Amino acid sequence: MPKILICGKLVWSRKEAEELFAGIADIIVMDSPDRADFLANLKPGGKYEGIVGVYRHNVSADQIGIFDKEIIDALAPSVKWIAHNGAGYDQIDVAACKAKGIIVSNTPGAVDDATATTALYLTISSLRQFSRAERDVRAGFWKSNHKAGNAHDVTGKTIAILGLGGIGLRYAELLRAFPARIVYHNRGKNPIAPEWCEYFDAEHLDEMLSIADVLSVHVPLKKETEGLVGERLIRKLKRGAIIVNTARGKVIDEEALIKALEDGHLGAIGLDVYPDEPAVNPRLFDFPNATLLPHMGTETCDSQKKMEIRALTNLVDFFKKGKGADIIPEHQ
Amino acid sequence: MPKILICGKLVWSRKEAEELFAGIADIIVMDSPDRADFLANLKPGGKYEGIVGVYRHNVSADQIGIFDKEIIDALAPSVKWIAHNGAGYDQIDVAACKAKGIIVSNTPGAVDDATATTALYLTISSLRQFSRAERDVRAGFWKSNHKAGNAHDVTGKTIAILGLGGIGLRYAELLRAFPARIVYHNRGKNPIAPEWCEYFDAEHLDEMLSIADVLSVHVPLKKETEGLVGERLIRKLKRGAIIVNTARGKVIDEEALIKALEDGHLGAIGLDVYPDEPAVNPRLFDFPNATLLPHMGTETCDSQKKMEIRALTNLVDFFKKGKGADIIPEHQ
Repeated sequence: MPKILICGKLVWSRKEAEELFAGIADIIVMDSPDRADFLANLKPGGKYEGIVGVYRHNVSADQIGIFDKEIIDALAPSVKWIAHNGAGYDQIDVAACKAKGIIVSNTPGAVDDATATTALYLTISSLRQFSRAERDVRAGFWKSNHKAGNAHDVTGKTIAILGLGGIGLRYAELLRAFPARIVYHNRGKNPIAPEWCEYFDAEHLDEMLSIADVLSVHVPLKKETEGLVGERLIRKLKRGAIIVNTARGKVIDEEALIKALEDGHLGAIGLDVYPDEPAVNPRLFDFPNATLLPHMGTETCDSQKKMEIRALTNLVDFFKKGKGADIIPEHQ
Repeated sequence: MPKILICGKLVWSRKEAEELFAGIADIIVMDSPDRADFLANLKPGGKYEGIVGVYRHNVSADQIGIFDKEIIDALAPSVKWIAHNGAGYDQIDVAACKAKGIIVSNTPGAVDDATATTALYLTISSLRQFSRAERDVRAGFWKSNHKAGNAHDVTGKTIAILGLGGIGLRYAELLRAFPARIVYHNRGKNPIAPEWCEYFDAEHLDEMLSIADVLSVHVPLKKETEGLVGERLIRKLKRGAIIVNTARGKVIDEEALIKALEDGHLGAIGLDVYPDEPAVNPRLFDFPNATLLPHMGTETCDSQKKMEIRALTNLVDFFKKGKGADIIPEHQ
């Protein structure tokens, strides 16, 4: 029977996993304390020798680090499929995977709802100044520091979405209920976007930024998107605009963001992600108009279970049908 | 020309107010430092003598106190209309007004959106444990205190609404976008509620409470509703349920609420209102699963302006047509 390796333990679906793989593959749970031990055990005679599929969760980086070229090279040639749990797979060296013929899948749809809800929360908090208000009431100030002119309704605002994939679309749906005007920029028009999502191509990106009350970031982290939301783009937003980021910290140029907060160009920020997680730049804590979450995007038992099972199902389908449903775009 | 008195200054619509009342009434702004001065100036020869209409905002209580029987009696017989700015008018002695033939209006529709958005925020924060997460990241713990099993998606939950008026309905609409199942209890079925709002009458109230993941309170404060959400009702909720309150603090029996948090019966609370505002019971600050706002329900410049103009329009209509649109139910 082929063997699969669980990198990052199954929190919500251990029982479901055993049922899913019954008669298909044996489950081995990675328990190496560090990278050296992990690499050693991938070799002939090691406990991970001959594994064919890998389930990967970002928490495994705490022991063995990210799936860089060194790890990918060590997984080859036996490993054929890495089923990553999460939408973003920036901790996997995809080029190395392609060179070794390893397919990577992620869990796109499963994260949409929880992440979009996080973005909605940050949007409400930023527009309404709720995070600051809670800090004030807990410090004994009631709302004496609150300036009414700083708080705005969500309803009727123009929300700009940078990257309208599954998460961006779900966020758009939730905001449409208020309603808000939804505008977006993407490499191309999203064919499944409803008509009330107004598309702005690269040529009209500045126009979109100039009308946005909120810019919410939903692009994956890649070489092309690192620092994408930088000085130039931020300054195209109108004064008092808000930036929300539930994607990846490095998509925003943090120095440019802080500068725009310092000089009042930005009205507020809502961040769930940071360039050097779990480290957070302490300068961010100084802005009263900042809502800061510790990467809670998909931290719910409902969504975590959905994501685990989705990732595992990709592995099962690989064994049963030759491939899983969620192959990342780079392989397509 | 008749005179109207502005009790609580117009922050957002001073110019609009002057235009609204041009040729209709003279505007006097109440500037008494205390109740004694206010009462003295209502008498013959005083600067407020002969006022016919009053615009009232709760902030005026900071100087002259609430509109109790003493103030109402002093306003009579010249005053015929009190246009209160706000949905809740528990700071006005309505019985005394009726006895003196003074009509009271409020601003029902104008507060719906901002208050419902506040309730939505508290619902998300409570289900997802976001307020706690932010306190943790700011204290340098990243999400190490977060237990994943404590956080839940909004989508698919059953949301029980106690009091389905304008605010409750707006809250229902926003949650429907996820979607969530919406159940409600009211004195009677709300005829304009969509069919997906499931009505539970008094006989079936316990059944509604037993299926609710979240109970959101939207009833006005009256004698009959004081302490309505007490020990009995709270214990009918299932273990781990969440209570959200954006109505009035005294609708909840705070001791019963705290007890249910202490023994783990309640999973979380989200409060915008308190029995003795601006005082907050410091025991509430000890619960990590509490999201606490300083009565921010309608604190947005958009909604504040809408409310001011709505209240003033009731006064204008009184002069022009004999009555305003938003007469409170007690007069009807």
